[in-house]
This record gives sequence, structure tokens and C-alpha cells, in this order.
Amino acid sequence: MSHGTLHFDGQDYLDGVASEPQRQGWMQGSPPPEDKCIRFEDDRFLDFPQIRWSLSHMRELAPTVNVWRGEAPASALGQADAGTEAAIDALRFIDLTGRERTWASSLPDTYCDGMLVLHKGRRIYERYLGALRPELPHACFSITKSYVATLAATLAHEGVLDVQQRVPHYLPEMRGTAYADATLRDVLDMQIGVAYSELYSDPAAQIWDYARAGGLRPRPPGYSGAGNFYEFLQTLRKEGEHAQAFAYKTINTELLSWVMKRVTGVALADMLSQRLWQRLGCEQDAYLTVDPIGVPMGGGGMSATLRDLARFGELMRREGADVSGAQAIPAAVVAQIAAGSSNAKFVKAGYTLLPDYSYRDMWWVTHNEHGAYEARGIHGQRLYVAPGAELVVARFGSHPIAASSAHDPITIPALLALGRMLS
Amino acid sequence: MSHGTLHFDGQDYLDGVASEPQRQGWMQGSPPPEDKCIRFEDDRFLDFPQIRWSLSHMRELAPTVNVWRGEAPASALGQADAGTEAAIDALRFIDLTGRERTWASSLPDTYCDGMLVLHKGRRIYERYLGALRPELPHACFSITKSYVATLAATLAHEGVLDVQQRVPHYLPEMRGTAYADATLRDVLDMQIGVAYSELYSDPAAQIWDYARAGGLRPRPPGYSGAGNFYEFLQTLRKEGEHAQAFAYKTINTELLSWVMKRVTGVALADMLSQRLWQRLGCEQDAYLTVDPIGVPMGGGGMSATLRDLARFGELMRREGADVSGAQAIPAAVVAQIAAGSSNAKFVKAGYTLLPDYSYRDMWWVTHNEHGAYEARGIHGQRLYVAPGAELVVARFGSHPIAASSAHDPITIPALLALGRMLS
Repeated sequence: MSHGTLHFDGQDYLDGVASEPQRQGWMQGSPPPEDKCIRFEDDRFLDFPQIRWSLSHMRELAPTVNVWRGEAPASALGQADAGTEAAIDALRFIDLTGRERTWASSLPDTYCDGMLVLHKGRRIYERYLGALRPELPHACFSITKSYVATLAATLAHEGVLDVQQRVPHYLPEMRGTAYADATLRDVLDMQIGVAYSELYSDPAAQIWDYARAGGLRPRPPGYSGAGNFYEFLQTLRKEGEHAQAFAYKTINTELLSWVMKRVTGVALADMLSQRLWQRLGCEQDAYLTVDPIGVPMGGGGMSATLRDLARFGELMRREGADVSGAQAIPAAVVAQIAAGSSNAKFVKAGYTLLPDYSYRDMWWVTHNEHGAYEARGIHGQRLYVAPGAELVVARFGSHPIAASSAHDPITIPALLALGRMLS
Repeated sequence: MSHGTLHFDGQDYLDGVASEPQRQGWMQGSPPPEDKCIRFEDDRFLDFPQIRWSLSHMRELAPTVNVWRGEAPASALGQADAGTEAAIDALRFIDLTGRERTWASSLPDTYCDGMLVLHKGRRIYERYLGALRPELPHACFSITKSYVATLAATLAHEGVLDVQQRVPHYLPEMRGTAYADATLRDVLDMQIGVAYSELYSDPAAQIWDYARAGGLRPRPPGYSGAGNFYEFLQTLRKEGEHAQAFAYKTINTELLSWVMKRVTGVALADMLSQRLWQRLGCEQDAYLTVDPIGVPMGGGGMSATLRDLARFGELMRREGADVSGAQAIPAAVVAQIAAGSSNAKFVKAGYTLLPDYSYRDMWWVTHNEHGAYEARGIHGQRLYVAPGAELVVARFGSHPIAASSAHDPITIPALLALGRMLS
């Protein structure tokens, strides 16, 4: 393993080992030294290397609502054996830049905080790095979207939602906005024409207005922007047409969460608890960050443990059957996700590292040889479900760069190589 | 049960039934109507009747750190039978104003959110009211102090702390403050001469400066006060002498928490988890609010479930023996608490409703016929341990008045009557 620096976007960064938060001394001492303190108000908690601590401690920085695991015992995952773990660590693959790597060395090089592999439903590999521990929830970021949309697709299957309806049918407040003539199907597949930039490297991008509205970034003195997520959504104006192209925008999931709450009256945290956490034998409670009026951030606010994330992946691999064999998620919903949608609409978004992908119900569908689909979150979060290899991989990370393109050149071939090794 | 209003301090308040938050519609809807919204920034979340919702939802209003329950199954409490519950509900007693009441009617009249009775270690009565549910942690307020000081007394028993040492021996930063010549024993028994007012009804009282320093009340624009708990503690100046009289001041526990962290290096949340939550078979995780640099509020920031609160009471009643029979807390520590301290020093504080009490290691010792001692928190929190009646009572409340004197005239005789009924 390297101990030094890595280079991204013209900058040097401490590598995964050198940036470990214990080694760096972040938030140690009483009080921590000023230059090792991580405060919400400083607005640096997502900066690198602070982020290596923050993503395992989100609830200590912001208000959150609990996702209760219920009272049942945790479901068994089996114990990884050292031989299989060593074999996976030694797995060699060629990354997308042509460099040969091992699985083990790829973890610090992608700032991995945790990696769990299930094969045929049994745990065969588990590692914790950085600030993560088995019982600690880690920020999932946009993996949250896949949970939310899977529940939304389930509600549609149950007839509670109609994906052909336009948004104002459920939320009259959204008349006169970008969503006035958008259907829920457009929202679920992120084919919305809306003036909104998600370019994290641009401080003027609307993603930061959205974050400030939701209380997830400090507000400047005299702040007069939207007071919460719902207010922010009502400011959005149309740009281009719906249903023409994939365009990844977090606010679509926020809007979807609002529809679900309005129609069902059930809070997202309770729906996650009742329909997933309590049925999957999850080990720990999860949580969602909430905005100033208590609305959870459906677009990216969930933190969960690595093992419980893997349990959701296994549910999907089992075509929606929970630990008792009952359908927690309808098999038709899982099949619809696994089948993906239009690659032609996907490629318009310009993800050059993902030429074969499509996007369906807020899952990224690889269309690779293992029929894999994945939930993805910035800074290295991923839930990879590969039915063709009977494989589920859950991983968390705290990568310096808020774009999956920073680690996809390593992660994509690593996951494919693992699937080949196991199938 | 009455449905109407109650009268305190010259004002009318909706009674316990009429003020139930579901009935009132607080935080319902998407979004909730403006006049039913509870926001941290509004600084009204502890106002009545908002408080009836807030105390079961503290983590949704402020950052918190988790107290992990571990992986063991919850310890058995037994099931309350309806006959015993009905007998307790029918229990009649005379309150301190001379009015006859029943146990059942006393619950809404004291804005009770939850009541759990253990007799000989078995659950014989359990009720949830207001916004509370069995799995939801409720604000403990100053009950937190009894947990912290019991752990501190345990550390002293183990030789890790020396209660005869002065505070600056552990915290050199506290030289030149009110605590320069105070011993840990003075701190543990709240016999500190310090200029600091805890009069909640006075907006200029220092308790609010302390709360703002700790991020538990909004800060006004241009705020220039202390940035965190540790900074606030260093501003405190001496007033009067130490070791002369009981003087209840939350900052003493904050100071004690700081000493414990400095000496052990173990975070309070982890110490609570390792020494109590994981050993008592607690059912749910608890949590502590944290200040802007992640320091938990040892003086009153804990939220726990009613059942887990009762489990701590039962540990004390069992003289510190945990569910396996091992000493989680040394028996000598429990004996020292149960024995209390000087009533002469206690009465100087002027608690006319508590003429026989003393205060030891941040427990209130009744010196009543059942040898009871109790942890108390504003707005109606209480953990009552009565060894002479083999009785533990855990209760939560969200009383409009931030002073125990508002409900002690009912609660004190109710607890005594229950002890007599059972012994």
C-alpha cells in the first residue's frame, strides 16, 4: 500500500492511508486543537481530509431522524473466512487507465471506508478503514435515492402512485414550476428539463442553494433564500424538455419524496423502517438528515451501516424476497430496475466512463455481463448488485473528489473482475 | 381525566390531554402549517405546548452523538398484567395541597409522557402518552447528571479520579476561574460557589448563555459569546465559598464531564455505551446532544427510552449488579449515593417541598421511609429508586413549567403511596 499522495484534477492529496482521520488527529482531544476541529459552521466538514471523519459522523454535525430497525434479531450474513478474503485481496485487475492493481491496494487508493462482499447471500469479505466501524452508520449520499425510488416504484405497483400522472396532480404547489408538465416516470428516471446545476466544484451551482435550504450547509448572515426543501423546489424553472435525456439532478428525488409523503402521509424514515429495516433483519438503526422543518433529505441524507446497506442489495438480488421469503419489494419492481431503460437517452448526459449504462428508478444499470445495477453516491458510496455473479458489493468511501469519475476507473474494473472470479 | 386547562404561575395552560401533540397537529402535514411547525431557529421548541412534541424528537432539532446498545439481546423486564396496572391506576393519594387524586388522573395532570414501574425487578406498569412510544428516546434533561456522576464516582472508586483533588489538577485551563480551589467532591455534590443563575424563567440567566455556547439555543446575529461548553466554563467566576451549601448548577456536571474526558480520553457516549448500555441489556440506542465542537452535553443532553431509563434504576436497586450479576457499578458507589449527604447543607438551597432531602453524586436523596433516591430533570423527568419498597419508577414528562416544584406536590406523594402499596 502506498503512503503518500495521490493526484486528482491538478492537485495533490494525501492518500487513503496517510489521510486516515485517527492518524491525522481530527476531533481528538478535549478540546481538539483548533486546526483539528470539524464544525458544521465552518462549512469545511466536507472538505478533504476532514471528510474522512465527517462521513462516519454526520449526525454529530446536523439534526437527523431515526430509521428504526425494529426488535427482531439481526439476520445472519455468515462469517468471511481468511482464505477467501486473502484471495480477494490478491485479485489483480487492469484499471481503465491501463495500470495493473490488486483489490487490496485499490481500497486506500479509492479512499474506501468500508467494503463488504456477499456471494450467494453469504459474507465472504469485510473490511473497515478510515473512521468507520461495523456499528457506525456512514453517509450514503445518493444511494439514498435508490432506496426512495424503489419504495416509490413499489407504491406505484400497489396502485398508490400512478407514474403516468403529472406532478401537480399530487402537489398542486408545483404548478408553474419546472415540474408542471412532468410525469412521475420522468422524475423516477431523471429525465426532467430543469434549470439546476449539480456541479459540485462550482460554488454558484444550485446544488448549494438546495443544501442551504435544507440546512445542510451553513447559511450566511442575512440569508434570504428558501427556508426548507419544499420552498426550494417551488423555485425551480423549466429548461429544455422532459423525457428527452437523462439528466442527473438530486432535486428530482427530493420532489419524489415530497409526493410520497403527501400521498401516503407516512414519513420517509417510518416507511424505510416498516418496509425495509424491520423486514431485512438490519443490525443497526439508520438515520436521515432533516431540514429546518423536519423534512428528511430524500435526495442524499441517509446514513446506514455497511452491513445494512449490503442487506438491501441482497434483497434486490433475491428479487425482493425478504429474510422470511415474503416479497418486501415486488419482483416486478426489481425486474423493471434490472432491465434498465434507454441507453440512447443516457449517453446524452456525457458519462464517458459509462458508455453502456442506463438509468431506471434511480438505479444505475450497467448492462454488463453480470446484469449488474448499482446505487451510487458521491465520494465513493456504492451498492453493486450483480445477479449474474450472485454477487452483492457494498462499499463506502470518503474520496476527496465529489464525482464518481474520480474512482470509477478503478472501481468499475475491480467489480467486474470480482464478478468473474466468483462466477 | 380532565380535558381543559390547568393553572400555573398565574397562567392557564392546556391540560395533559388537550395538549397532546397529535391532537394539536404539531409537525403534521407536508409541510406542516406554519403555526404548527417546530423549528430550532424559532427558539420556541421548548415552549409549551410545542415541548410536548419536542422532548420525544430532540435529535430532529440538534446534532447528537449515539450511545450504542451493543449487540446483545434486550434484557427481559417481564410483562405488566392488566389487573396490577388497573390497581395502580386506581391508587388514591393526597397531594401536597390536600387534594385527593388517583394515580391515573395524576398522569395527564403532570403532563406525563411515559411511566414505567418495576417491582422486584419485574415490570408491573407501563404507559405512554403524548408523543412518546416505547422505542423513542425522550429528553432526560438533568437525569443525565446522575448517569455522569455515577460514572465519575465509579472512576474515583477505581482510582482513576481522586475526588479530593482540585479541578485545576485535571484541567489547568480552570485556574483563575470559580473552580480554581474547588475539589471534585465539591463538584460532585454541587457545593460550588460560582456566579451563575439557573433560573429558567429569567431570560438573562447564565443558563441561557451556557445553552447558546453549547449550540442548544439559537445564537443571535453577530453572536460573540463562548463558542462551546469548554470556553463557557472558563468564563465562570467565583461567588461565595465552596463546600458550604448545596447549590444546583448544571455547569458543575459539564465541568465534571470535561474532567472525565480529559483523564480517560474516552468520549462520554462511549463510556455510557461500554459501562451501562452494553451491560444492562438496553433495548435501544440512546443519544446526547453535542456542542459545535462535538462535546456532548453532560449536564442534560441525554435522550433515552423509558425502558432503558428503568434498567439503569434497576441496576442501582441491585446495588450495581448488571444482568449477569457482575458489578457494572461498585456496590460501594451505590451505597454512598443511597446514604446521601448533609441535609443541613441541602436546606440552605431553599427547596421547601424537599425538607428532608440531601444531594450526593448528582442524585437527589429523599431520606424517606423507603430509602429512595432519585434522578430528576426539568419538565417532569424522574428516575425513582426505592430499595425499601423494591421499587423503581421511571417517568418522562413535558410539563409547561421548567421547575420540578410545579409537579412535585403531586409526584412526591404519588411515589410514596405507590411504595406503600407495594411493600
